[in-house]
Amino acid sequence: MFQSFEVTARPEQGPPRLAKLRDLMTTLGIDGFLIPRADAHQGEYVSARDERLSWLTGFTGSAGFCVALQSNAGVFIDGRYRTQVKAQVADVFTPVPWPEVSMGAWLIEQLPDGGKVGFDPWLHTVAQMEQTRAILSDKGITLVQVENLVDAIWDDQPAPAMEPVKPHPLEFAGEAHHDKCVRLADTLRQAGQSSAVITLPDSICWLLNIRGADIPRNPIAQGFAILHADARVDLFMDAAKLNDVMDHLGPNVTVHAPNDFLDRLAGLTGAVRLDKTSVPVCVADAVGALAVWGDDPCALPKACKNPAEIAGSAEAHLRDGAAVVELLAWLDAQAPGTLSETQVVSQLEANRRRDNALQDISFETIAGTGPNGAIMHYRVTEDTDSRLEDGHLIVLDSGGQYLDGTTDITRTIAIGTPALEARQAFTRVLAGMIAMSRLRWPEGLAGRDIESIGRLPLWMAGQDFDHGLGHGVGAYLSVHEGPQRLSRVSTVPLQPGMILSNEPGYYREGAFGIRIENLIVVENAADLPGGDAHRAMLNWRTLTFAPIDRRLIVPEMLDAGARDWLNAYHAETFEKISPRLSPETASWLRDATRAL
Amino acid sequence: MFQSFEVTARPEQGPPRLAKLRDLMTTLGIDGFLIPRADAHQGEYVSARDERLSWLTGFTGSAGFCVALQSNAGVFIDGRYRTQVKAQVADVFTPVPWPEVSMGAWLIEQLPDGGKVGFDPWLHTVAQMEQTRAILSDKGITLVQVENLVDAIWDDQPAPAMEPVKPHPLEFAGEAHHDKCVRLADTLRQAGQSSAVITLPDSICWLLNIRGADIPRNPIAQGFAILHADARVDLFMDAAKLNDVMDHLGPNVTVHAPNDFLDRLAGLTGAVRLDKTSVPVCVADAVGALAVWGDDPCALPKACKNPAEIAGSAEAHLRDGAAVVELLAWLDAQAPGTLSETQVVSQLEANRRRDNALQDISFETIAGTGPNGAIMHYRVTEDTDSRLEDGHLIVLDSGGQYLDGTTDITRTIAIGTPALEARQAFTRVLAGMIAMSRLRWPEGLAGRDIESIGRLPLWMAGQDFDHGLGHGVGAYLSVHEGPQRLSRVSTVPLQPGMILSNEPGYYREGAFGIRIENLIVVENAADLPGGDAHRAMLNWRTLTFAPIDRRLIVPEMLDAGARDWLNAYHAETFEKISPRLSPETASWLRDATRAL
Repeated sequence: MFQSFEVTARPEQGPPRLAKLRDLMTTLGIDGFLIPRADAHQGEYVSARDERLSWLTGFTGSAGFCVALQSNAGVFIDGRYRTQVKAQVADVFTPVPWPEVSMGAWLIEQLPDGGKVGFDPWLHTVAQMEQTRAILSDKGITLVQVENLVDAIWDDQPAPAMEPVKPHPLEFAGEAHHDKCVRLADTLRQAGQSSAVITLPDSICWLLNIRGADIPRNPIAQGFAILHADARVDLFMDAAKLNDVMDHLGPNVTVHAPNDFLDRLAGLTGAVRLDKTSVPVCVADAVGALAVWGDDPCALPKACKNPAEIAGSAEAHLRDGAAVVELLAWLDAQAPGTLSETQVVSQLEANRRRDNALQDISFETIAGTGPNGAIMHYRVTEDTDSRLEDGHLIVLDSGGQYLDGTTDITRTIAIGTPALEARQAFTRVLAGMIAMSRLRWPEGLAGRDIESIGRLPLWMAGQDFDHGLGHGVGAYLSVHEGPQRLSRVSTVPLQPGMILSNEPGYYREGAFGIRIENLIVVENAADLPGGDAHRAMLNWRTLTFAPIDRRLIVPEMLDAGARDWLNAYHAETFEKISPRLSPETASWLRDATRAL
Repeated sequence: MFQSFEVTARPEQGPPRLAKLRDLMTTLGIDGFLIPRADAHQGEYVSARDERLSWLTGFTGSAGFCVALQSNAGVFIDGRYRTQVKAQVADVFTPVPWPEVSMGAWLIEQLPDGGKVGFDPWLHTVAQMEQTRAILSDKGITLVQVENLVDAIWDDQPAPAMEPVKPHPLEFAGEAHHDKCVRLADTLRQAGQSSAVITLPDSICWLLNIRGADIPRNPIAQGFAILHADARVDLFMDAAKLNDVMDHLGPNVTVHAPNDFLDRLAGLTGAVRLDKTSVPVCVADAVGALAVWGDDPCALPKACKNPAEIAGSAEAHLRDGAAVVELLAWLDAQAPGTLSETQVVSQLEANRRRDNALQDISFETIAGTGPNGAIMHYRVTEDTDSRLEDGHLIVLDSGGQYLDGTTDITRTIAIGTPALEARQAFTRVLAGMIAMSRLRWPEGLAGRDIESIGRLPLWMAGQDFDHGLGHGVGAYLSVHEGPQRLSRVSTVPLQPGMILSNEPGYYREGAFGIRIENLIVVENAADLPGGDAHRAMLNWRTLTFAPIDRRLIVPEMLDAGARDWLNAYHAETFEKISPRLSPETASWLRDATRAL
């Protein structure tokens, strides 16, 4: 089983570790040390070796950082983790609400003028450090590069991940890696740049059509790369991982030891493109005056999936949909009060594992019943495991990493007979999800410009939810992928081939949660009779097929267009998924997808 | 009558004027000269003296500029004016599509390396010149400050406007001007700034509670001001205009001759706040190294109207509504084919003039019937005046400047029996306008984040329109006011008290146009039962009351919520406006506002 329900936070381990760290700070003559959640690649998931934040503090959330001072130690967490952090860290740590309080502002408050704070230059980006330095400069507080002090005191720190790297077949990738290198090198030359530094592993894996297993839930290999304007690539990755891909990589890719990365950077000539928001401080230092700030050149091309990637994703979604439908039918057959959240998670993973293409789950399954459903990033553990009781809603958010695609689906299911208030909120969430699914919009708009369409039914009832409507999703890569997002922070125009989630929700603290999520892909919209012939428009094609719980819908709250969409979606779900099901489940699905 | 239908463009006058300008360029040893539409205050309207662009080229649009070179003369115009420019300028001028082609790119194409282009440093902002210089620097083309060459050759150039300035009564302004100065001075001190330079006349008029008449359609007085951090104001305005306001201005406002402005700037000490997007180059030069870039400190406070300003605007809208309803009833009584556009414009202005509080119209009335309705910024002239024929729609977009408020209203009216296609498009436009009017949304969002709500019904039919959904409107000030906008370029959060227009439209070139516009003001939304108690939300209150043509509505295309809104809006319109009408018109209004 990929997922574990282990309680990993041990608050009592924090204080002695913090004491050791402070001793080392004293020895080095610094007043503080920064412990981010990030590794050198700024991904959302990190390998066991890079779990410094949770090792030191006990806090296991996917975002946050600790600033350890002699007199205080702040654990900076955003709104999602306010409750969780209190349960996970000992009281030598002070939770700090972030981004309301910035690291710079907190340091100014805590430290005397002239204070010195150490940081590991591999773990912080240029943009982060610039921002913090700007705040601190008035007070004479300085940030100084030091070795990683957590690594220095962490006796049994795991070794670097060293999982074998495999070729990603052209059948799924859709474009040979050399062709990608040539295409991107061309953009470098046009910009007058001689090379680009790539530090994001999913960019490297996409560019070279390789996949790895260094990080749980993400089929990536850790490493760095330099793409040159002549389409050659220097790849900095342990050769021991690369036995299966040396032939695949071919003569235009030169493999180097990871330790040679900084020296190679120092030897570059011409303008070198770096992404300020992801590149570590020491990488920028090594490039020096040749640095030109720009986006990771892989980011946008990777986001715009080609036909092979879209076809692969669609196929993965059908297999994944069958696993989910088997789970829903099974769940429906259990009496309220008999199952617990961990049993649901285990059964769902078992269903997915029947497919040989499954490589991993794409993130820890969220299965929150009743009040747990209102915790947006709930991960069930042995301590929190709860029974699915009559009247509950259970939020089930999960996905699979298949060789041909990455899935991410949320369904909210009625246990017994939920209250009208919950069904009304569910119908509003559904109405928003359908409005976004049906949307046509003019070319050139970004997620920010259209996100409101998916929130409108909630807004009109005085309700809303505190996460984005959707995130980008990779093609057998990260389940959270930029730059495309359906969010008020996203100003990147949506383009054909971008895969995103469409996942409005509603959360009533202490009572219930609701989220409904499909993956959707941007397509060029066909002209409509009577429409503006000169106007290029886009629309979505839905990739996810699984029924939406009809028992939670208040039908008169949906307009005719929304009802028609839902009925057509359910009909297509039955048509596409039923051939992949057991006869009993197919029969269940027929009932679950009948017209409203 | 405020509006004239005169054909002001005389293409044949352009060539001899351009020849004179070129002679002067030769004398000065420069290769080109820039002629913007702007005056030193960067407003949308300019005084007769500042109409340099139309005097030289014949082009009368409200945006654009000319770059006169020895061999060529480009007239840069945006999409709205592609057709108009061809009719207005002689062929010694080359229309250049802008912003697709930037001034910098065009100069590089037209001029040899090392070329010299002159400009008047009063008429160009720092931001404009920085942008152009960045493009030109590689080619060694320089921009050099010179006297205004158009002024030098324009023998009968009108004198500077010198209309008397009047106090704006506290009853309408809602806050004494000294209190405003103290409030804004406080923000300067908090920012560590010793003064702010204000070059926008509507900012100065708002700050000092004065109004003028230097510019048609805008109740503003031209001048400059310096607000000091101790709340004193230096006002640079001709004393001859100020006889009626010297007592009102009081001891904290010192009046200086306009010619002393640059010297005073040069004598400032401490950090001086300047708005890069509106301040002339020579003003920034005079401030020199003390300059700190920031927003005009009046912009946001001016946008957030106080209760007195909102009450005044609401009252002005009722009187304006009565004038519009009288027009609509009169129009309805005429047979198709009998009226022309200019007659409609004249009758509407006559109706508005019956109100003694009317100071001006707030812009040239747009009255476009049939195909003319599809020209978004149509201004009817003797040459284009067209009859309102059976089957036409007429777009009627107009407003008044009243002492207590500025109005802006568009109605689209059926002449005879328009085609189904037009009525369907009208109903979509109306559905979007209603959806925006009904919207509740969470605090913190900008126009960009919610504009799509007003476009959705058109988008779903493959249609859209090429202007923003709405613009800010002043309180007896400019009818186009920033920074609030319902537009994809607006990222300023909407705040209570901001007045905006809500004006979706649809334009079928050569056939018909549709636009429906109300003014709406942002308010804090009351909590709804079952809504999120902790969530601050905003909604609109509608200020404009006039009927929407029921004959153009396809009722089954509106959902129940939209129909309810329209019926309630019409009932409120009858209740509020009918007491102000003649008995015949009140009877007409009862019929025009009956429930759908």
